[in-house]
Amino acid sequence: MSEFEEPIERLIEYFRSLPGVGKKTAQRYAFHIIENSKEKAENFAKAIVDVKEKVRLCKECGNYSASEICPICQRRNQKLICVVQEPKDIISMEKVKSFDGVYHVLFGCINPLENKGPNDIRIKELLARVQKNGVQEVIMATNPDVEGEATAMYVAKLLKPMGVKVTRLAQGISIGSDIEFADEVTLEKALKSRQEI
Amino acid sequence: MSEFEEPIERLIEYFRSLPGVGKKTAQRYAFHIIENSKEKAENFAKAIVDVKEKVRLCKECGNYSASEICPICQRRNQKLICVVQEPKDIISMEKVKSFDGVYHVLFGCINPLENKGPNDIRIKELLARVQKNGVQEVIMATNPDVEGEATAMYVAKLLKPMGVKVTRLAQGISIGSDIEFADEVTLEKALKSRQEI
Repeated sequence: MSEFEEPIERLIEYFRSLPGVGKKTAQRYAFHIIENSKEKAENFAKAIVDVKEKVRLCKECGNYSASEICPICQRRNQKLICVVQEPKDIISMEKVKSFDGVYHVLFGCINPLENKGPNDIRIKELLARVQKNGVQEVIMATNPDVEGEATAMYVAKLLKPMGVKVTRLAQGISIGSDIEFADEVTLEKALKSRQEI
Repeated sequence: MSEFEEPIERLIEYFRSLPGVGKKTAQRYAFHIIENSKEKAENFAKAIVDVKEKVRLCKECGNYSASEICPICQRRNQKLICVVQEPKDIISMEKVKSFDGVYHVLFGCINPLENKGPNDIRIKELLARVQKNGVQEVIMATNPDVEGEATAMYVAKLLKPMGVKVTRLAQGISIGSDIEFADEVTLEKALKSRQEI
């Protein structure tokens, strides 16, 4: 016999399917639903269904959006594009308030081990945007790992002949961190890219 | 302007209302829903609504149950009752496979600071059960803090004249822990309750 009766067990299973949620946490979430009002549970359920019904990909950048063109693409400088791997990377980038350009989500990066080639991510769409909007600069903000680097290099090679400036986020030691605890690869990169002060 | 559009923001808010969930975690959960199938989202939503529709309190013990009388009360020894503060305490107690009695949920404990008196928790129901079922022993498994202790003492005083044995979970140092790190109150209790070997 399972630990809980069916409706409780099933809700626990759904909570467990969320990223990083184990058995105990899922139980706490389920008990929270049980202990709160029916109205709140119904609204919660509605919010889950709504998000799937209303949220789609922005036709321009590929970010999640409730409208055909997302608010960022509607309002900001189209001539500056920051290319990211996933929609969640946009959340991080948006903390930098000084950036006034738009984004382009690749949905992954070139990764032979996962059988992901250039045609499996949104590179074609990026090239089309660059041509259509007379983009001046493309910032490659793919992850600083092997696959992210390779993807950045690949995209740069395609974009440069189109006369667009392609840049990459700077790599080095984190602000506020300790040199003592920086890993050697990061330190080597920081040394190579050292700048005159 | 908020960071996300309305349907996403609203779902994030609902996830944030779960215990121990902060902004970042709620965002990850919401993105997980967006990235998964519509069918899964609908089933998740249904599981939330279902649990509120089907789960009620067991008429005997007060634990969450999908039936009028919960499976534990239906099948186990009615003459041995373990009294706990909250339904989630039953989950912990049930890990002790050797316990074959039933439970009684008080839904809290006597706590003057929170204006909770004996009539605000399910003590009346406990007395009625003891009388009705000819209970032989009541184990008080309220928390080992001031309020839990006081509640255990209060209930014991009411039960003893009814000729029922009232016991309390033993308190002392945890199995597998280090005496070095045990707090002084626990150590004092362990010393007082020392047993001959």
